[in-house]
Amino acid sequence: MSLAVGVIGTGVMGAEHARLLRDATSGAHLAAVCDADEARAAAAAAGGAVFTDGMALIASDKVQAVVIASPDATHAQYALACVAAGKPVLCEKPIAATAAEGLAIVQAETALGSRLVTVGFMRRFDPAYTEMQAARISGNIGTPVLLHNIHRNAAAPAWFTGAMAVTNSLVHEIDISRWLLGSEMVTAQVTSAPGGDPMLVTMQTDKGEIVSTEVFMNATYGYHVHAQLVGRLGSVEMAAPTRTLTNLAAAQSFGFPPNWVPRFTDAYRLQMQTWVDAVAMGIHVGASAWDGYVTTSIAEQIVDGMAAGNRIDLTFPARPALYA
Amino acid sequence: MSLAVGVIGTGVMGAEHARLLRDATSGAHLAAVCDADEARAAAAAAGGAVFTDGMALIASDKVQAVVIASPDATHAQYALACVAAGKPVLCEKPIAATAAEGLAIVQAETALGSRLVTVGFMRRFDPAYTEMQAARISGNIGTPVLLHNIHRNAAAPAWFTGAMAVTNSLVHEIDISRWLLGSEMVTAQVTSAPGGDPMLVTMQTDKGEIVSTEVFMNATYGYHVHAQLVGRLGSVEMAAPTRTLTNLAAAQSFGFPPNWVPRFTDAYRLQMQTWVDAVAMGIHVGASAWDGYVTTSIAEQIVDGMAAGNRIDLTFPARPALYA
Amino acid sequence: MSLAVGVIGTGVMGAEHARLLRDATSGAHLAAVCDADEARAAAAAAGGAVFTDGMALIASDKVQAVVIASPDATHAQYALACVAAGKPVLCEKPIAATAAEGLAIVQAETALGSRLVTVGFMRRFDPAYTEMQAARISGNIGTPVLLHNIHRNAAAPAWFTGAMAVTNSLVHEIDISRWLLGSEMVTAQVTSAPGGDPMLVTMQTDKGEIVSTEVFMNATYGYHVHAQLVGRLGSVEMAAPTRTLTNLAAAQSFGFPPNWVPRFTDAYRLQMQTWVDAVAMGIHVGASAWDGYVTTSIAEQIVDGMAAGNRIDLTFPARPALYA
Amino acid sequence: MSLAVGVIGTGVMGAEHARLLRDATSGAHLAAVCDADEARAAAAAAGGAVFTDGMALIASDKVQAVVIASPDATHAQYALACVAAGKPVLCEKPIAATAAEGLAIVQAETALGSRLVTVGFMRRFDPAYTEMQAARISGNIGTPVLLHNIHRNAAAPAWFTGAMAVTNSLVHEIDISRWLLGSEMVTAQVTSAPGGDPMLVTMQTDKGEIVSTEVFMNATYGYHVHAQLVGRLGSVEMAAPTRTLTNLAAAQSFGFPPNWVPRFTDAYRLQMQTWVDAVAMGIHVGASAWDGYVTTSIAEQIVDGMAAGNRIDLTFPARPALYA
Repeated sequence: MSLAVGVIGTGVMGAEHARLLRDATSGAHLAAVCDADEARAAAAAAGGAVFTDGMALIASDKVQAVVIASPDATHAQYALACVAAGKPVLCEKPIAATAAEGLAIVQAETALGSRLVTVGFMRRFDPAYTEMQAARISGNIGTPVLLHNIHRNAAAPAWFTGAMAVTNSLVHEIDISRWLLGSEMVTAQVTSAPGGDPMLVTMQTDKGEIVSTEVFMNATYGYHVHAQLVGRLGSVEMAAPTRTLTNLAAAQSFGFPPNWVPRFTDAYRLQMQTWVDAVAMGIHVGASAWDGYVTTSIAEQIVDGMAAGNRIDLTFPARPALYA
Repeated sequence: MSLAVGVIGTGVMGAEHARLLRDATSGAHLAAVCDADEARAAAAAAGGAVFTDGMALIASDKVQAVVIASPDATHAQYALACVAAGKPVLCEKPIAATAAEGLAIVQAETALGSRLVTVGFMRRFDPAYTEMQAARISGNIGTPVLLHNIHRNAAAPAWFTGAMAVTNSLVHEIDISRWLLGSEMVTAQVTSAPGGDPMLVTMQTDKGEIVSTEVFMNATYGYHVHAQLVGRLGSVEMAAPTRTLTNLAAAQSFGFPPNWVPRFTDAYRLQMQTWVDAVAMGIHVGASAWDGYVTTSIAEQIVDGMAAGNRIDLTFPARPALYA
Repeated sequence: MSLAVGVIGTGVMGAEHARLLRDATSGAHLAAVCDADEARAAAAAAGGAVFTDGMALIASDKVQAVVIASPDATHAQYALACVAAGKPVLCEKPIAATAAEGLAIVQAETALGSRLVTVGFMRRFDPAYTEMQAARISGNIGTPVLLHNIHRNAAAPAWFTGAMAVTNSLVHEIDISRWLLGSEMVTAQVTSAPGGDPMLVTMQTDKGEIVSTEVFMNATYGYHVHAQLVGRLGSVEMAAPTRTLTNLAAAQSFGFPPNWVPRFTDAYRLQMQTWVDAVAMGIHVGASAWDGYVTTSIAEQIVDGMAAGNRIDLTFPARPALYA
Repeated sequence: MSLAVGVIGTGVMGAEHARLLRDATSGAHLAAVCDADEARAAAAAAGGAVFTDGMALIASDKVQAVVIASPDATHAQYALACVAAGKPVLCEKPIAATAAEGLAIVQAETALGSRLVTVGFMRRFDPAYTEMQAARISGNIGTPVLLHNIHRNAAAPAWFTGAMAVTNSLVHEIDISRWLLGSEMVTAQVTSAPGGDPMLVTMQTDKGEIVSTEVFMNATYGYHVHAQLVGRLGSVEMAAPTRTLTNLAAAQSFGFPPNWVPRFTDAYRLQMQTWVDAVAMGIHVGASAWDGYVTTSIAEQIVDGMAAGNRIDLTFPARPALYA
């Protein structure tokens, strides 16, 4: 009746997922936590089982379903283990550190004939994005022709490299654009400001829609995500991301959050509840292993080709029937 | 570990509370439903116990805590029964049909020495209102001096009388204004448009703050609630209640909901989760029986005095120490 | 072909009117300036005639039309002199320091049978207010029922008294509310915060419309005027008073002006151009002497009756046919 | 004292410029109008001199300065004639139908050693754009890195070809982007939606700033121009282009204009007043012949190279010292 979920990793996102399972999700509970630091795992587990080995958590019969929130490089091995164990898994993005590893997960699922992996592209559950997708599907704005994305971080971590603007940040827009439009990307072209940040990435889909994305890792003023979807009859875009306005000191204002967690609080909660509900119903909702693989592959192809500044033709294997 | 909650009533709000307990609340489950129509109760119970007598539900050992969502006239008797049974209760507003009945509940709790009753003034959990209260408490906007409230319904039901604009709608602003300001109302004055709708109610608090409230039962265009809190340094108000904006047919627009349920979806969910968490912790959060009584009493005094158009002095008994 | 205009007074508003006539008005020129300080008058006149006596300026054949921007107490005598001289006059508000003086001007015009006086209630030319009036006249929002006004100054001058919040500030809302609604005020009631500032003034019109006005002389954060007109089908209100939004330092914001001059720049320009055009066409547009008198009289009656806190019945003589 | 201005052309823009000179400009008057249709010219002249030959109007001693609003193909010859006659001229954009013709005007001015030609890129006088430029110059938003432009027309005329989206519409963004940034464009790249409309044009400046422009000729819902300038510390963008908001029929909305004239009413008025003032002062303000030439040349180079979809390197002769 209540799904026993184990969480691998206790970083920012692991802690947030554990909190959601403990306090804010119906039909599930936090059954186990894994971290190499046992004390830290125990603190997060709040009474649940404690593991220092992710594979052991996946194998444990105390765990019916798994959340992967460990370092990116470990995602693929845990996801594969979950598929092998037949356990549903919500894997933080990216699904894998490389497209090749992502494809291996797709192949494992295809062999099994079942979709067990959900990739944590939480924006698909953000109410603003879901309203925009609904506007597209309703036909009200006409055939989509353009999507403008803006993705600004206040400041990139010190260890951030240029490629990570693509593999770590742009991947969100790759996924959400595919989902908003219901289309596949076929070309990409990158223009960079001096120093490489910000960059403007122009993609085009199999239906000809143009997807323009600003990725700005050091926008200084705050974390800010915006999207506008343009159709032949009209457009729909995000409203100001605030619930209140303040008049103070000669200005009217509202504040930006410092990072993505407060901006996407609702999305993370709804993603977790939806995943738990979907597991209970035996269905798959959210980004699939195929979506995770394609997004990683596009990012990889962009990183490989962006230096030249020319248009990059994006290629993939055929989509397996499992993900039709 | 999981609180067994019984819901009395299966109307709009009863159904919504049952849904929240079933699908969207952590740490609780829907244990029972009561409705005079047994089939209807069974449908809403979704496997839980079924009652046709509210008193029997309250008495049942299958029920640890109760939600009252039955017709207003029955609230007081059920709330009193919950207090007598020592069971925590979340009672839809109003706490009682009359101030006298509300006071009886206060007296029962006072005799018991424990606060078991929470009145469902859900706006206290609405993120916009909580940001506004936080702005007041932070001191950023300075000492509060004015609060402007707007409360518009698209259309009043056919059975609505003039007094109900006060007892059914204005009560929300009476409660939320007391809560936003942390003040008590001491006077009220009503000015009505021709036909009695809309009305403008001007209250003043024990600290001298002015509270202006437009109540418009037949505003036609939609359900719309707005508030602006003004302090000596600045003000804070609700932003446009939308997450997206649409450009279509020569206009930019966003939609209003037809009624309060979509507008306060988050508030209802957060109210339920907070109530369940508070019961688990043995504390009281939200509007108390005293708040419910005072609000009902103010509404009653306004209804009695409004015809004359003059300033009404509001009077109450002393606040019992239990509610300090 | 080009109207020769003389300006009496070189304070903030006199200087602004002189500038408009010199640099931004078609069909008129600055012919003369009067100030007790001759050097100051000469500087403002920029080549035009210089006067130190307002009556001499009015009498001069170099002057075809007059703008009065001298201290309030002198308005009436100059306006009467203009009427006696048969010269069109744009008189800064108020038309007179007392209702009795204002009525004398009305009587002079009535005796003459011609409307020569225009009172400088410039908000009637503000594009936001004119859009709101147009919305009322179009019938789109249905029969008007309520008008919410907010009038905030950053800080009142040291010499400001409580009564001046009414006679100096509220008068703008008295005039613009009469104009927006096309109605006359019949009652008023004042509620004041501790210290007398802010105050909330509730008026009601001969058609039953409710007019609610916050006047806050020391709102600290900036100069801010807002209005919302509510009808039985919908409402229309001012948008955020800005053309750009800035994202900076963790916030999105726009600035408020320090006082009314930048807020109403367009209104002052359009008022002057419209007045010059109306004089050329021999018609009257804008607030008449009657409007000026009624507004002053309402303010006077409110000041006289506000201390008691009760509803004040507003009375006037019958409107002369000249102002029908 | 009052500048005698002759207007060539009585189409939409010619009529608007004539109206401004007649009714809304200080220090100038409408002295003459030229149109091949003499009756039409006479109607627009409103008492001024009437010409059917533009060259005759330019040569007339009744005309001190000229506004060119005739068909695009005739701009260059009239502009050259004005330079030859030593008369200041405000020429509707484009300065010429081809870059070669535009360069000839630059060369004529260079030979004369004086800037007589102002190109009517009116957006430079739009208050939203001037606030954005001021924000850039102030340094508040830091070093500029990106400029996002959106340019939507409700519907292109039937005779519109794909190239005209560049030569007729995009030219506005080419000019305003150069002016906002104070930079020169060095590359351009075009991505088109199926059918060629909309297109996304990515330019990069000599300082490395990225300029992204959506040009959508058939956006259906209305005329809509937006710009956002992004710097290393913050960004500034246009606010919603409205002064009022309407609540009606289940939505809050404001309207878009059908075309550019209502959107840029203030800009056209301020451009004319500024031009008249600049002529009186003997200075040059606004887009120069050089700006007009460069913009036309960039548009031409984009049209020539866009089909390939690759990056186009933009080249020009050196900027003459006259335009430093």
